[in-house]
Amino acid sequence: MFIDLNCDMGESFGDYCLGCDDQVIAHITSANLACGFHASDPITMDKTIRLCAEHGVAIGAHPGYPDLRGFGRRNLASTPEEVRGDVLYQVGALAGLARARGVELQHVKPHGAMYNTAASHPPTAKAIATAVAEYDPGLILVTLAGPGGEIFRTIAQETGLKVASEAFADRAYTAEGRLAPRGTAGAVVHDPEVVAARCVRMATEGVVEAIDGTLVKLQADTICVHGDTPSAVELVKAVNQAMATNGVELQTMGRTL
Amino acid sequence: MFIDLNCDMGESFGDYCLGCDDQVIAHITSANLACGFHASDPITMDKTIRLCAEHGVAIGAHPGYPDLRGFGRRNLASTPEEVRGDVLYQVGALAGLARARGVELQHVKPHGAMYNTAASHPPTAKAIATAVAEYDPGLILVTLAGPGGEIFRTIAQETGLKVASEAFADRAYTAEGRLAPRGTAGAVVHDPEVVAARCVRMATEGVVEAIDGTLVKLQADTICVHGDTPSAVELVKAVNQAMATNGVELQTMGRTL
Amino acid sequence: MFIDLNCDMGESFGDYCLGCDDQVIAHITSANLACGFHASDPITMDKTIRLCAEHGVAIGAHPGYPDLRGFGRRNLASTPEEVRGDVLYQVGALAGLARARGVELQHVKPHGAMYNTAASHPPTAKAIATAVAEYDPGLILVTLAGPGGEIFRTIAQETGLKVASEAFADRAYTAEGRLAPRGTAGAVVHDPEVVAARCVRMATEGVVEAIDGTLVKLQADTICVHGDTPSAVELVKAVNQAMATNGVELQTMGRTL
Amino acid sequence: MFIDLNCDMGESFGDYCLGCDDQVIAHITSANLACGFHASDPITMDKTIRLCAEHGVAIGAHPGYPDLRGFGRRNLASTPEEVRGDVLYQVGALAGLARARGVELQHVKPHGAMYNTAASHPPTAKAIATAVAEYDPGLILVTLAGPGGEIFRTIAQETGLKVASEAFADRAYTAEGRLAPRGTAGAVVHDPEVVAARCVRMATEGVVEAIDGTLVKLQADTICVHGDTPSAVELVKAVNQAMATNGVELQTMGRTL
Repeated sequence: MFIDLNCDMGESFGDYCLGCDDQVIAHITSANLACGFHASDPITMDKTIRLCAEHGVAIGAHPGYPDLRGFGRRNLASTPEEVRGDVLYQVGALAGLARARGVELQHVKPHGAMYNTAASHPPTAKAIATAVAEYDPGLILVTLAGPGGEIFRTIAQETGLKVASEAFADRAYTAEGRLAPRGTAGAVVHDPEVVAARCVRMATEGVVEAIDGTLVKLQADTICVHGDTPSAVELVKAVNQAMATNGVELQTMGRTL
Repeated sequence: MFIDLNCDMGESFGDYCLGCDDQVIAHITSANLACGFHASDPITMDKTIRLCAEHGVAIGAHPGYPDLRGFGRRNLASTPEEVRGDVLYQVGALAGLARARGVELQHVKPHGAMYNTAASHPPTAKAIATAVAEYDPGLILVTLAGPGGEIFRTIAQETGLKVASEAFADRAYTAEGRLAPRGTAGAVVHDPEVVAARCVRMATEGVVEAIDGTLVKLQADTICVHGDTPSAVELVKAVNQAMATNGVELQTMGRTL
Repeated sequence: MFIDLNCDMGESFGDYCLGCDDQVIAHITSANLACGFHASDPITMDKTIRLCAEHGVAIGAHPGYPDLRGFGRRNLASTPEEVRGDVLYQVGALAGLARARGVELQHVKPHGAMYNTAASHPPTAKAIATAVAEYDPGLILVTLAGPGGEIFRTIAQETGLKVASEAFADRAYTAEGRLAPRGTAGAVVHDPEVVAARCVRMATEGVVEAIDGTLVKLQADTICVHGDTPSAVELVKAVNQAMATNGVELQTMGRTL
Repeated sequence: MFIDLNCDMGESFGDYCLGCDDQVIAHITSANLACGFHASDPITMDKTIRLCAEHGVAIGAHPGYPDLRGFGRRNLASTPEEVRGDVLYQVGALAGLARARGVELQHVKPHGAMYNTAASHPPTAKAIATAVAEYDPGLILVTLAGPGGEIFRTIAQETGLKVASEAFADRAYTAEGRLAPRGTAGAVVHDPEVVAARCVRMATEGVVEAIDGTLVKLQADTICVHGDTPSAVELVKAVNQAMATNGVELQTMGRTL
């Protein structure tokens, strides 16, 4: 049994420091690197590429809308042509810095509002998938696991890309296998042991206990964890260790897909 | 006899239109494309890449300082690490968009204040050359022809890069082969026939008549022309035709170096 | 009989030139100045303030979403708190530059996507009105004439602001007094004489012939004209002259409201 | 005896948090608020204005070069016209947000590279002083205490502005009363008690012990402290308490100048 643990990284910007990249790096297998539109800058990108390379962590691009102030979390009405261009620009920029360090990209995972829009707006999903396939058809595109990711996943597959389904370590799911909205009570799971046990079950049985107590199928190739705070890092560590204890090998999505 | 004619292109930004790219494209062999830091955006870059591809014009990256408002003409005190990162980011971004159109980059020519700083500040020159070589040692680096480009040229050669020397079609030169400062009377030559004749002489004899009337040696692999205005385009056309008339074949620098 | 003619101005940015401000200025009474978020920069703002002052044209702030590349025309999902802050920041910045030239602001008219959102989204309308009233309750807020502007107009009035209703010189209206969507055939009127006659009728009778031929009431305090192109300027000139010929005095909204 | 303690504040940006504003606010009398060019955004500015108002701390504008990534610390070659515009824009923007909270600005202190350039480059100094005087001749302009601030101070005074001289709490001075360059051993004083004692002596005797042990005269109206880190806050607290113990009243520069 294999699973990939991915984490958003390289989100600092200039003098502004964000995330515990140095600590979380030891516990994950894939990293999604911000590309300068919603976070990061060339020096932060280079530093994060080197950090990943030193730890054998696979690198993916994490392109977002050009909205540094809003951290790419605000929807910016963009045409498919704009989305295609923004993705190619950011993927190319990260790949340029990575190539200078002898590293190749493994995957692309859109960030924030762009990721959300791709999940429900086919033209945006198509623009992203097209951009990635035009850049390198060998890249993996990360989409939401479960029915919430169906639109984007289907479009990505039709474009000929390898697709990874992503579950979230600390988020609750509805009985339909969708993410419980952040407002809902219990939408975020905080107990590291509970989170770790849920992740193990996702990896070993392909199921997760939904917010209503039922079991829901959730096929995930990679599980997203956070490294924003010291306690988030503790949670990642717990997930990582629980996998080892339960015989799940951590493996980059690039090897298993 | 061969010469390359290069022109800065793709300098529009969003709704802001700059340059007569559609017209100048027919008369040049290499284009330096802005990469989003001092001008341009992903859609403009893509459009310009396609325009070049349709006309068989070779593409180069034209990276600049991150200063859209100042069009990259204002010096921005940057560390070598920052310059390296800015160049790799921009070259990678352009290469990403080009790759999606099946096009490869031929060269890199720094823009504006970054180009000027590289000419006199070895750490900046070294940072640029390193970035280009790390990205792709097969790329040509464009530097000033004559003694003004010696620092940058030497450093680029030491880095193992192929180097193109660039003369300016409409600029006067001192007896030492340096660009006459813009303030000087006669620093810019306006008469298309005079400009064309000077360019032919650069290509055929490797000399230019200096501002004091003496002849100065100026070995140029590529001549820079402008496409900002309809009259600039007329001038490029005149240069292009004079070359044909005088048996100088226009050839991209990538073929002759 | 009085009417105000307003035009968006000061939309250049750095080296990028947009609009025929120097020509349109002679024919209008109020100008909406971009404030650096969707267009313009401090030097352009200063230049435009001086141009308006020299021609006795009243100045208003034209705040937009922070999206230079999209010219503020793309919707950017913003919280009311963000909109309030963005409006205050931009109004203050313009007022600062105006104050240095001894000029005071007359009005505020939101730009592009922010203007459109205010028309249909009460929290955005409220955030804008609140920001303006907090800055200076004596400022006029410009809203769409007709039923399309009702939400924003009502909220602005409840906030205690003076409100100007704005009609568009060259846009067709539906029988309900709403702007005919840009896609519709005939949505934009191009003939200067027709446009001028329509504007005169708006000013003298408070009506406009709708796209279906019926007459619709349209109470407008100010009519928006464009100065983007030489032909747009011709149209403004025609409107200006038709007003004089028909005994309508051009007067800034600040004097008539 | 009176002294003002000033601190740079409101340097967060979007999701990026910088500084311990909530803690340092209790110990200072004047705050220099970033205005969105090198740091901050409208919401951060508004939040910081309210924090200052609640604690009776006077507000000043802290305008910088438009270089968010470099935090305004990199010199950006700007014309005097550009500097004037950038200062007016930023001062106006902050004043706009402050006015909405019923607060007026007390002073202006240029930030980072702009502050450094003003100290040695008369055209930049003149552009800043002109902008401030044009905006409001009642504003105080903050300049370096000692001979390092002489150029800027003299120009500011000639412009008719009230000028405050600023010493740095934790920086060493040369025997000439200039700041010891940051590279020098002992250039930054770390011991809170030593720093506090030095500040008391500046306030009571107008002298500071130079890095070579001699006493140097240093007339300061305000002392700059930092609030970046918890230990920096401890140091400010120590300075604040030492003033009280030694009979120096903390008073905003606006009251004493």
